[in-house]
Amino acid sequence: MGGTRHNLRVDGARLWATILETSAFGATPAGGINRLTLTPEDGAVRDWFRAACEAAGLAVGTDELGTQFALRRGRDMSRAPIACGSHLDTQPTGGRFDGILGTLAGLEVMRSLNDAGIETEAPLLVVNWTNEEGSRYAPAMMASAAYVGEFTVEDILSRTDAAGISVGQALDSIGAVATEKLGTRAIGAFVELHIEQGPILEAEGKTIGVVEGGQGIAWFDGTITGFESHAGTTPMPRRRDAMGGLAELALAVERIALAHGPSAVATLGEAVIAAPSRNVIPGRVSFTLDVRDPRSATLDAIEAELRAAIATIAERRRLAIDLDRIWRKEPVPFDAGIVGLVESHAEALGLPHRRMVSGAGHDACNLAAKVPTAMIFVPCRDGISHNESESATPSDCTAGADILLQTLVTLANAPKAPA
Amino acid sequence: MGGTRHNLRVDGARLWATILETSAFGATPAGGINRLTLTPEDGAVRDWFRAACEAAGLAVGTDELGTQFALRRGRDMSRAPIACGSHLDTQPTGGRFDGILGTLAGLEVMRSLNDAGIETEAPLLVVNWTNEEGSRYAPAMMASAAYVGEFTVEDILSRTDAAGISVGQALDSIGAVATEKLGTRAIGAFVELHIEQGPILEAEGKTIGVVEGGQGIAWFDGTITGFESHAGTTPMPRRRDAMGGLAELALAVERIALAHGPSAVATLGEAVIAAPSRNVIPGRVSFTLDVRDPRSATLDAIEAELRAAIATIAERRRLAIDLDRIWRKEPVPFDAGIVGLVESHAEALGLPHRRMVSGAGHDACNLAAKVPTAMIFVPCRDGISHNESESATPSDCTAGADILLQTLVTLANAPKAPA
Repeated sequence: MGGTRHNLRVDGARLWATILETSAFGATPAGGINRLTLTPEDGAVRDWFRAACEAAGLAVGTDELGTQFALRRGRDMSRAPIACGSHLDTQPTGGRFDGILGTLAGLEVMRSLNDAGIETEAPLLVVNWTNEEGSRYAPAMMASAAYVGEFTVEDILSRTDAAGISVGQALDSIGAVATEKLGTRAIGAFVELHIEQGPILEAEGKTIGVVEGGQGIAWFDGTITGFESHAGTTPMPRRRDAMGGLAELALAVERIALAHGPSAVATLGEAVIAAPSRNVIPGRVSFTLDVRDPRSATLDAIEAELRAAIATIAERRRLAIDLDRIWRKEPVPFDAGIVGLVESHAEALGLPHRRMVSGAGHDACNLAAKVPTAMIFVPCRDGISHNESESATPSDCTAGADILLQTLVTLANAPKAPA
Repeated sequence: MGGTRHNLRVDGARLWATILETSAFGATPAGGINRLTLTPEDGAVRDWFRAACEAAGLAVGTDELGTQFALRRGRDMSRAPIACGSHLDTQPTGGRFDGILGTLAGLEVMRSLNDAGIETEAPLLVVNWTNEEGSRYAPAMMASAAYVGEFTVEDILSRTDAAGISVGQALDSIGAVATEKLGTRAIGAFVELHIEQGPILEAEGKTIGVVEGGQGIAWFDGTITGFESHAGTTPMPRRRDAMGGLAELALAVERIALAHGPSAVATLGEAVIAAPSRNVIPGRVSFTLDVRDPRSATLDAIEAELRAAIATIAERRRLAIDLDRIWRKEPVPFDAGIVGLVESHAEALGLPHRRMVSGAGHDACNLAAKVPTAMIFVPCRDGISHNESESATPSDCTAGADILLQTLVTLANAPKAPA
């Protein structure tokens, strides 16, 4: 046996019905979902997920952080499972697709294989990672990071939400019982289907994003210090206006990112004037910068150009400008072999596709540190995500699940790697 | 009698000692004054002022809003008094000169005339206007505005502070008793000595600012609306970044004001990003603008250029930018005759001087609507005011008081205008 079955498809109508069915757990009046991790709503969708997986013949285990693993047996149980999945938790005003599509499409793949009576060589696995969103507990993508060893169980269980409830207490409150230790679940490869959460696929009329990796990210905090003075009595040439410095900096950020386009992005997301008043020249402004690119060298170059621009602005305007890099995450390259598989399946199914990088963070970006990993993107309307108006079409969701199915089966049926 | 006495000078040491003496009322540890209007501290300095004026032979009256009028008799009591003065209230972290210099210099002028045994033709008047600062009760310059008929007594008395205490209750609490109706006190001319509250005189090495008038002011509220989206997934060219629009607008404001220099000033004093987050492109920013110039036509031109710049920015960046003019105060020209007198006395006394406009508002700007008015500025260190570190030198204060003395005597001894 083996090889790829190009005639095999998921049941798109069933997938869509399942998305609608689970959207009742934490449904908001505006058509979105409020399903913060480890709340009763999240507990309810987890119970539903376990029952649905078990009904599909999968064996469901739960690790110490509540991550659910649903295993479909393969012919050769000595092979590590080929995994897919994502997350079922949402932002407080989240949508019906972020994370949900990837998890439920995994279930749909298993159901479709069952319907077709197909057994794969390696077993298959659908994963529901705990707390991808990070809205209730920091950090985001907590469980997948802990799975690859970035955090200990004790560390994560002791983290608390705004009400002082720990992760451990929250797991107890929804009746989550660990059946396996963190990090012990074998995963031979991981493929995550997700909405793009950006506008590129929709704008270019593509159905499938072949995701080559996650961007590197650098976060900065900064302050601009000038001199607060009277708006009516201080002549323009004598001003040391922190707001003028911020304005030049914002445009420099834009210009530098554009010069490293099309991949680089840079955002001045927060800016706060100290003691603002309409008739006082701002004396101090604090701000944040978010810089991303798929290449480490480009992050380096952007930072160097930013610092040079800042030095020029500060000198010319007689301001003090501090820029502090508070966090940097290196780019995450996905597995070239799996990326190539995703691409060839999209080509074979006649789906318009393009290579791209993931602008947002995903559990797959954590998994990639230990496991051959890739992602599949499908368009979302207007690029909107983390919003109750988040939307994707049934046909795009189906197309993404078809590529997931093809990729998983190809990987599971590939010749076993030599020991 | 008659004519100007160029040999007459105030007693600078006594003036300085008086400034230091009254700075004890509401003194702050940092060397400033916290003497909000109509508080016990303000009541104490008012009692001191009344006693000092009476000791100098002046007749002190109080109007319905607590403004104190100290009259020095003239030879011809049918002539309207030539007035000076300013205010003794301060900001909560105010300095020792703002308002105080002009009021106490008025007292010093009377004392010096007494010492010299000089009687003027017209009577002289020193005024301590209630609530110039506006920190406790809005609006600022309340009593002088009411004096010229902009507000009724009832309106002002019913205004309340943050604690709900009305102006009427506050006047009662410090024992202020009205001895005359608002607006009935005759004033033939008004000359206000004040620190510049800006950096121009100090920077140019001038001692006397010959103030030709108050600037016109236009205040604007604005909003910039783009589209909030993910900092990691939205390519630079697809962004509708409200912060980018604000940056261009801030630089346009600066450029337009500079082009109308040196008189025009424009300030973007407040800017608030709606729902800011370091990894979200700002979708909406609100801001304020403060535009000032001594000429109405320039205010008009700046507004027109701003609106043109905004239209360009909005179109190019696909943003909606609203700009709403919420207030406009026309420029206040001072009396050309009195301005000329101030200038000629500065020249005669060999004091470096320059013509200028007042960037800030003053009681004199209100008086000018009904009474021939002018102002005299002296330098303050680094242009700092409304701050405990506000500072002026004894010699500059003395010089300003000398010009005040000369100007008042010249006006009071001028031939009586034909009936």
